[in-house]
Amino acid sequence: MILTVTLNTALDITYRVRSLRPHTSHRVTEAVERPGGKGVNVARVLAALGHEVTVTGFAGGATGRTVQERLSAVPGLVDALVPVTGATRRTIAVVDEVRGETTQFNEPGPTVTPAEWTAFQEAYEDLVPSVSAVALCGSLPPGVPVGAYAGLVRTAKAAGVPVLLDTSGEALRRGVAARPDILKPNSEELAELTGSHEPLRASRDARRRGARAVVASLGAQGLLASTPEGRWRATPPAPVSGNPTGAGDSAVAGLLSALAEQLPWPARLSRAIALSAATVLSPVAGEFDRAAYEELLGRVTVTGEASAA
Amino acid sequence: MILTVTLNTALDITYRVRSLRPHTSHRVTEAVERPGGKGVNVARVLAALGHEVTVTGFAGGATGRTVQERLSAVPGLVDALVPVTGATRRTIAVVDEVRGETTQFNEPGPTVTPAEWTAFQEAYEDLVPSVSAVALCGSLPPGVPVGAYAGLVRTAKAAGVPVLLDTSGEALRRGVAARPDILKPNSEELAELTGSHEPLRASRDARRRGARAVVASLGAQGLLASTPEGRWRATPPAPVSGNPTGAGDSAVAGLLSALAEQLPWPARLSRAIALSAATVLSPVAGEFDRAAYEELLGRVTVTGEASAA
Repeated sequence: MILTVTLNTALDITYRVRSLRPHTSHRVTEAVERPGGKGVNVARVLAALGHEVTVTGFAGGATGRTVQERLSAVPGLVDALVPVTGATRRTIAVVDEVRGETTQFNEPGPTVTPAEWTAFQEAYEDLVPSVSAVALCGSLPPGVPVGAYAGLVRTAKAAGVPVLLDTSGEALRRGVAARPDILKPNSEELAELTGSHEPLRASRDARRRGARAVVASLGAQGLLASTPEGRWRATPPAPVSGNPTGAGDSAVAGLLSALAEQLPWPARLSRAIALSAATVLSPVAGEFDRAAYEELLGRVTVTGEASAA
Repeated sequence: MILTVTLNTALDITYRVRSLRPHTSHRVTEAVERPGGKGVNVARVLAALGHEVTVTGFAGGATGRTVQERLSAVPGLVDALVPVTGATRRTIAVVDEVRGETTQFNEPGPTVTPAEWTAFQEAYEDLVPSVSAVALCGSLPPGVPVGAYAGLVRTAKAAGVPVLLDTSGEALRRGVAARPDILKPNSEELAELTGSHEPLRASRDARRRGARAVVASLGAQGLLASTPEGRWRATPPAPVSGNPTGAGDSAVAGLLSALAEQLPWPARLSRAIALSAATVLSPVAGEFDRAAYEELLGRVTVTGEASAA
């Protein structure tokens, strides 16, 4: 069982409109909704890969009910979301059919009370000892202390469970100091954390700040892993084009699933790259194309070397 | 008791963003949601004026549940919405704080099945005999026949209950032929129906097509009423500026409440103008400023004359 944490779950809504024209009225030609938030996306990919996965975080209001109804329909996925009085946020992605571009509106999320935050931490402490890996993903809703991830990292480490952190800004800065096993920033988050736009140097800095391993996602340049076991770069066999929504979450699912199966780093990275590329190639935002995934898996290039023992 | 019909009810969501920039991501600074659809808006104003009002139409899904929860909290308002399998639509209004302008996204609404449409007609037939007036408002959701309003107008007339129609396009064209007591188009809807951009001529044409009375809303030029009892024009004492959202629905509520109280046309028009202007002046979209309403009520200009008896 893998545990993913999404403190700021979402109901992700995608609208298609003919052409976005500011300050006019649009008829939405298609509206699709599904549970979201980074950890929820990671969990959905893990479940699709055949892993048992538990989702925790917060859910509240009518939007939270919809999120939970939808999650309960996913085979292999256990809903352990903690109730909150405020309503789970919506995100609205408006896709312009003519230009193919997306305009995004993100609600801030419910304000979590101190009692709700305490209830979540207790639920988390109960869940952690029985899982093989934990992923802490995404932004913090209002009311959750900025040092939240640091505490959750420590709880996992105290239970001897490997923990991956994928967040940004101050939550990332505070979280990394608690020594997560894997940090998965994109280039922007890594630069914001370290002040360096040079991925190798920035990864080294992030490890000095506490991360045991750093897997930086560099967009078309693939993944760069800096770990105690060695250093690798992994890239897809050819550049892929499509919708990048969820590609980073699929990469996290790839890393986690391979970690839970105790595979070595090159295999973890291959899986992350193949899933990420297969997500970009999928016609449905945030889902991965299984045939493409299986085809790509054997063709990922991983270069680098293991550290001397 | 007044009955308002909203076949395409909505959950109206208003987002504030700093500045709308297409094809970028926006943090929503404020999200407000409330039940919507024209007949629902009319009912809320009627209830605020102290009238007992029943709301019917369709409600479904999580959004429908939210609409019904909110409506049940309004004193004086009875929820008689008929369940539908599809989900009640959302409308999203994105307010650009810098420019003060609004960009609107409207979902199409649930597809109503023939059985659901039949269930609605039966519910409507049961409600009509015990009310003093009926308002049929807004667009038709997918699946409802385009001649829907014509049938609903006939049912009301057969029961001897006055009926107001406020819709557009083909639903208006078909509905007017069933001889509603009051048609309340704006200038655009009236021009689309009649082919004439000259309000007096167009109102005459709309009456020839079946409307007993036409009250055309002409924006800043106020209301033009063409009725068997006479012809009047009503204007506010001074132009008002603010948010026009819901001003037309408030005008309908004014006409209906005065009709239910058996007031003559000039009093109906004064009430409609004062409510409409007080809605534009309200800081909250679609609500009216009660002090402004009461102050404006005695200062509306109504010119025109009654027909010879």
